[in-house]
Amino acid sequence: MGDIGHEQNPSFVLRAIKDVKLQDIPKPTITDPYDVIVHIGQTGICGSDVHYWQRGRIGDFVLDSPIVLGHESAGTVVEIGSMVKNLQVGDRVAIEPGVPCRHCDYCRSGSYNLCPDTVFAATPPHNGTLSKFYKTAADYCYRLADHLTLEDGALCEPVAVAVQICKVGNVRAGQTVVVFGCGPIGLLVQCVAKAYAANKVIGIDMSASRMELAKSVLKCADETFSPPQMPKANGEIYDVEKESEWSAKVAAQIKKTFDLGEGPDVVIDATGAQSCIQTGVHLCKKGGTYVQAGMGKENVVFPITTACIRDLTIRGSIRYTAGVYPAAIDLVASGKVDPKVLITHRFSFEKAEEAFETVRKGGENVLKVIIDGVKDE
Amino acid sequence: MGDIGHEQNPSFVLRAIKDVKLQDIPKPTITDPYDVIVHIGQTGICGSDVHYWQRGRIGDFVLDSPIVLGHESAGTVVEIGSMVKNLQVGDRVAIEPGVPCRHCDYCRSGSYNLCPDTVFAATPPHNGTLSKFYKTAADYCYRLADHLTLEDGALCEPVAVAVQICKVGNVRAGQTVVVFGCGPIGLLVQCVAKAYAANKVIGIDMSASRMELAKSVLKCADETFSPPQMPKANGEIYDVEKESEWSAKVAAQIKKTFDLGEGPDVVIDATGAQSCIQTGVHLCKKGGTYVQAGMGKENVVFPITTACIRDLTIRGSIRYTAGVYPAAIDLVASGKVDPKVLITHRFSFEKAEEAFETVRKGGENVLKVIIDGVKDE
Amino acid sequence: MGDIGHEQNPSFVLRAIKDVKLQDIPKPTITDPYDVIVHIGQTGICGSDVHYWQRGRIGDFVLDSPIVLGHESAGTVVEIGSMVKNLQVGDRVAIEPGVPCRHCDYCRSGSYNLCPDTVFAATPPHNGTLSKFYKTAADYCYRLADHLTLEDGALCEPVAVAVQICKVGNVRAGQTVVVFGCGPIGLLVQCVAKAYAANKVIGIDMSASRMELAKSVLKCADETFSPPQMPKANGEIYDVEKESEWSAKVAAQIKKTFDLGEGPDVVIDATGAQSCIQTGVHLCKKGGTYVQAGMGKENVVFPITTACIRDLTIRGSIRYTAGVYPAAIDLVASGKVDPKVLITHRFSFEKAEEAFETVRKGGENVLKVIIDGVKDE
Amino acid sequence: MGDIGHEQNPSFVLRAIKDVKLQDIPKPTITDPYDVIVHIGQTGICGSDVHYWQRGRIGDFVLDSPIVLGHESAGTVVEIGSMVKNLQVGDRVAIEPGVPCRHCDYCRSGSYNLCPDTVFAATPPHNGTLSKFYKTAADYCYRLADHLTLEDGALCEPVAVAVQICKVGNVRAGQTVVVFGCGPIGLLVQCVAKAYAANKVIGIDMSASRMELAKSVLKCADETFSPPQMPKANGEIYDVEKESEWSAKVAAQIKKTFDLGEGPDVVIDATGAQSCIQTGVHLCKKGGTYVQAGMGKENVVFPITTACIRDLTIRGSIRYTAGVYPAAIDLVASGKVDPKVLITHRFSFEKAEEAFETVRKGGENVLKVIIDGVKDE
Repeated sequence: MGDIGHEQNPSFVLRAIKDVKLQDIPKPTITDPYDVIVHIGQTGICGSDVHYWQRGRIGDFVLDSPIVLGHESAGTVVEIGSMVKNLQVGDRVAIEPGVPCRHCDYCRSGSYNLCPDTVFAATPPHNGTLSKFYKTAADYCYRLADHLTLEDGALCEPVAVAVQICKVGNVRAGQTVVVFGCGPIGLLVQCVAKAYAANKVIGIDMSASRMELAKSVLKCADETFSPPQMPKANGEIYDVEKESEWSAKVAAQIKKTFDLGEGPDVVIDATGAQSCIQTGVHLCKKGGTYVQAGMGKENVVFPITTACIRDLTIRGSIRYTAGVYPAAIDLVASGKVDPKVLITHRFSFEKAEEAFETVRKGGENVLKVIIDGVKDE
Repeated sequence: MGDIGHEQNPSFVLRAIKDVKLQDIPKPTITDPYDVIVHIGQTGICGSDVHYWQRGRIGDFVLDSPIVLGHESAGTVVEIGSMVKNLQVGDRVAIEPGVPCRHCDYCRSGSYNLCPDTVFAATPPHNGTLSKFYKTAADYCYRLADHLTLEDGALCEPVAVAVQICKVGNVRAGQTVVVFGCGPIGLLVQCVAKAYAANKVIGIDMSASRMELAKSVLKCADETFSPPQMPKANGEIYDVEKESEWSAKVAAQIKKTFDLGEGPDVVIDATGAQSCIQTGVHLCKKGGTYVQAGMGKENVVFPITTACIRDLTIRGSIRYTAGVYPAAIDLVASGKVDPKVLITHRFSFEKAEEAFETVRKGGENVLKVIIDGVKDE
Repeated sequence: MGDIGHEQNPSFVLRAIKDVKLQDIPKPTITDPYDVIVHIGQTGICGSDVHYWQRGRIGDFVLDSPIVLGHESAGTVVEIGSMVKNLQVGDRVAIEPGVPCRHCDYCRSGSYNLCPDTVFAATPPHNGTLSKFYKTAADYCYRLADHLTLEDGALCEPVAVAVQICKVGNVRAGQTVVVFGCGPIGLLVQCVAKAYAANKVIGIDMSASRMELAKSVLKCADETFSPPQMPKANGEIYDVEKESEWSAKVAAQIKKTFDLGEGPDVVIDATGAQSCIQTGVHLCKKGGTYVQAGMGKENVVFPITTACIRDLTIRGSIRYTAGVYPAAIDLVASGKVDPKVLITHRFSFEKAEEAFETVRKGGENVLKVIIDGVKDE
Repeated sequence: MGDIGHEQNPSFVLRAIKDVKLQDIPKPTITDPYDVIVHIGQTGICGSDVHYWQRGRIGDFVLDSPIVLGHESAGTVVEIGSMVKNLQVGDRVAIEPGVPCRHCDYCRSGSYNLCPDTVFAATPPHNGTLSKFYKTAADYCYRLADHLTLEDGALCEPVAVAVQICKVGNVRAGQTVVVFGCGPIGLLVQCVAKAYAANKVIGIDMSASRMELAKSVLKCADETFSPPQMPKANGEIYDVEKESEWSAKVAAQIKKTFDLGEGPDVVIDATGAQSCIQTGVHLCKKGGTYVQAGMGKENVVFPITTACIRDLTIRGSIRYTAGVYPAAIDLVASGKVDPKVLITHRFSFEKAEEAFETVRKGGENVLKVIIDGVKDE
């Protein structure tokens, strides 16, 4: 990779753990006739971007050589391959950040989110979208309606994550849905559940301001709840039984507070915290669905017997499957979900590192952070 | 409850924890016109019977007053209610041991295994089947074909448990299925999976003799595997990370040994052991199904992130749903599953306590223990 | 059956084809402890009621002896059996008109709409609800929220029919749904589809006033369409090929008019007319769902090859399954569906025959006709 | 297209309706790095091949210019593209004859059988496999186990058709399945249903010899049945009501003969004949599945009200979806399905027209006709 300037594709590059720099990289050229080149307009930052920056790996994906960061982007098409039919130069598009191989059994059977050869933006060794120009497959770019901004387009990514979560949770009209966590994903899951005509959506978090956002601004949660913390005596060591009992008690309290009878049809954990996971399993209705959306520790103490006896279906959510990105864009375009409300900070491309730093520091008042694209001179 | 003799319904009664006695209890009389009275012929013993005997409770079900034990039974119909159409006096029947309320939402929607008001044999406060006469609903008794014995009929219960497990696992023709555990349920799950035309069934256990049974006698397992134990240094304390890594390693070894590629379509744990659960999750194919069939500790250390990233569907199995008992009886009647092979011990009714003692002691050579019924004088 | 007066249960009785009369019949008494007696408050008339009146049969159900008519009712509980927990005397309830046997395979597996022994109101030989007092099972009565009227409660029946139709059609958020027919059921199906967050609902009918109702009053249809009639030369005989081509042409026209691309995800025919059925099949998206909700002739000329090549899933809809009635009541209670708008005529109980006559005559301005209950003196 | 000889790719070309000729066409060359070239070894003839030959069109697919015929083939890989990983030169492979576009919504969602841009062998305007050399995508070629012949490989195509039919019919262990038609597809559907552990398979046909084949040679049918023909008076015109009644009567007779109770779980029509379709709908169990596998007339008189009232799920079957071809090959490789038994005629490549003529003439003793490949000189 060269320095910024002579190759005309300024990019925000993760060179090694905790080492990022604005650099110039070669401008992409089209070789596959189904590809397009997009001039990136707006990019959101996601926790996983920060994770690679700070730790250099997520699961089996390890940073071995520099990559460009960023994967929540929208932009303008500046070049199209000869076989591209769905797009024209000048189209403003949201970019689905993973392009699968199209040849493996997962791809052929419609589970392309599981394709091991997916080229996923900013997942090592693949470059992300925080460049001026980004090349990708035309069918993974979706034209934005005229009334949507590129910022809306970039935010379609976390909305798509929420749509996928509701899809694996089989969230349907008339249901009661409890969501643990009122961060960006938790809030958007609540928004999508509400847009899908869930009868009652309950958002759970420790932050009063975020719950207020859920209930009064986004109006995605019919109710919110702040769970009590397990009291701990001095010097007490961790006790599985005690935590389990406490979780069951909190679950019972939630059911009683909101008159949930047998419990919610669907419980979605968007925190990854062990206490939320345990409470969620105890809370869910017999025969209901529990979705693990947030990822925290690799291993958690899990109430497996309760999950069995209650005949729960337990699912995870990973990336997006067919139809999810279009559904997300429709929800944003129709105004049923308005992710703009989540934006708390905006930075110019030159200040990308500051943007990342803001997300890393976090805090109650940091939700969605957006980085502007590189302008034409 | 009276003493044996004057009321003509000798029963094996659990009076308190670790306190069982043969007693006479009132002979049942028909009040509901849809009920029948069955003269019990043969009864198998299940781990849960022993559990109530030794500990007096399973989950929320607590022994508060004496109950008759036993729930795996078959017998002969001796009396029928006025509305009974499916049975006649003299019919030999297998008894599905739980009769749900028929009025709650679970019952009405076909999930009668979740009905909270189910009258389940030998689950407190309901009497079990280890009596001379047992009253139950006619539609939960299934006529046995002439070539089946009452022993076959009693063994339909654990076969039904295995059918339910395969049902929640959605076991289908052509699949690869790995089953942890070669006890009675684990073996029967393998038999049912094979009868359902699974392509490859692999049974995992520590016992060479049980694996031999699976592979060479029942011929339900195409392959068997004895997992290595995690080596432990002296005085070492439990380390979550280490166990997790070891489990992933064993899973990789199983995949390699049997050339399983991406992994089995379905993994079923019939042990409840944490190490098996962890290995099973690491083993299962992306997008596959993991069924927790065995119950051990209420809480286990669970590799939740792996389960999410692999997009597993995790299910438990509890009791039986509609169509499962008839399917189990068909499998036995057609000879596709032959549970008789599992019988290692038979006892007369008078020696019921000895039978229970045999199951409690357990050991490699104790599989299915059967208690004969009370004969007419 | 006696004359009105001495037995205190005035009823509207179908004595033979085209022969109805207000009569007194014995007031019901509770024998089953799970039953309740309801003082009927309001009753809607359905096409099937009129059908029995005019023709004495529907399919295998034949009028052999007098029955009370009516099955879309709500009322007030005046007596409860000893085992009833969900209701109290004085509760205002909507009545699900069919109570299944609870013992057959269909009931046990959750398909109680298929139970052959269902006691369905006003389906021979069972009495309907157009009496002062009606006895039924407590769990098939649903308490109405205080803000709902008994008229709302009676109208929950056709809403439940629409909910069942949308359930078999698997209508989900984001879909495009085309409904043939803007009669009461067709309109309510559109309302339910919209309440389930369908993206685009299109109502098709010949009547401008009904389509106006759909689009501007109920606001359940985003678009409406009046299909052109197939031109016929004088004396021309019926030609299968010609009708098929015409249907395909109309389907293409609908797709083009509303920019439906590959076609709607779900097509629901609520007319039973052969031309609509054919057009609907040609219209539906490949891999989509076609629901036959309206019933007309027993046999129709059906484009089976098109249905196959397009990989359609074709379903009928019959009665209601578990959870459907509660879902319908929720939709009405929340205001998401407001069936009151459909009421065009109201009659006193004494004028029940006139009410039936109004439905029989029909016409564009006859939608839902309601009969008041018998008042206490 | 040139004459046979100088271009070294002799092919069996359909030049126009009823006009076929052996011709030389250009030998394919690899341009897409995921493609392979296969030296065709054996090819089966299907009814659709004959249909194009005789009529020049099926549905919207119309013969506008010459195409090579044939689509049921296996052969030996002679050249591979640079990105091909699953195959090597010399591998013997079965060829799945349709390669979808991989970019449309159908492909991305796993319904690649519905892709409108599929390159399907011998479907205009695409060339078929009756050439010496055929180029296709590597992931649509499946390596054959050593013990399988190329004839077995070619026959995997009709087996895959049968697997797809059983997939849409959701055929499972323990079910009763009735199949109308004992031609090649009908017989293979019976074989697959049996291999999937269906409890009882019943084959229906008019031909005693084919039913004998089903019951005694292939042993795929537990029972067979020859339906009575509707008696017709002289000069009688077609009467919808009469045919419908007759069909219902025959259905009742089948149920009674084989003690089917409520009817079979799945009915599959592999004839396309109206009388079979009608009988099949009347025969199927309430809540069961009816699959239209055979295609005959575009429109049939269909008992739609019966289908609705019985809550049937009606499905067609078109081509193959993900996993179907591998499943078919597994069934053949394991010996669970042995399609070789169906071969009644074999022809050399030079006698391809005679082979087609044999299929066109048909008759009870013509089942599967195979054409040998062009040998290397």
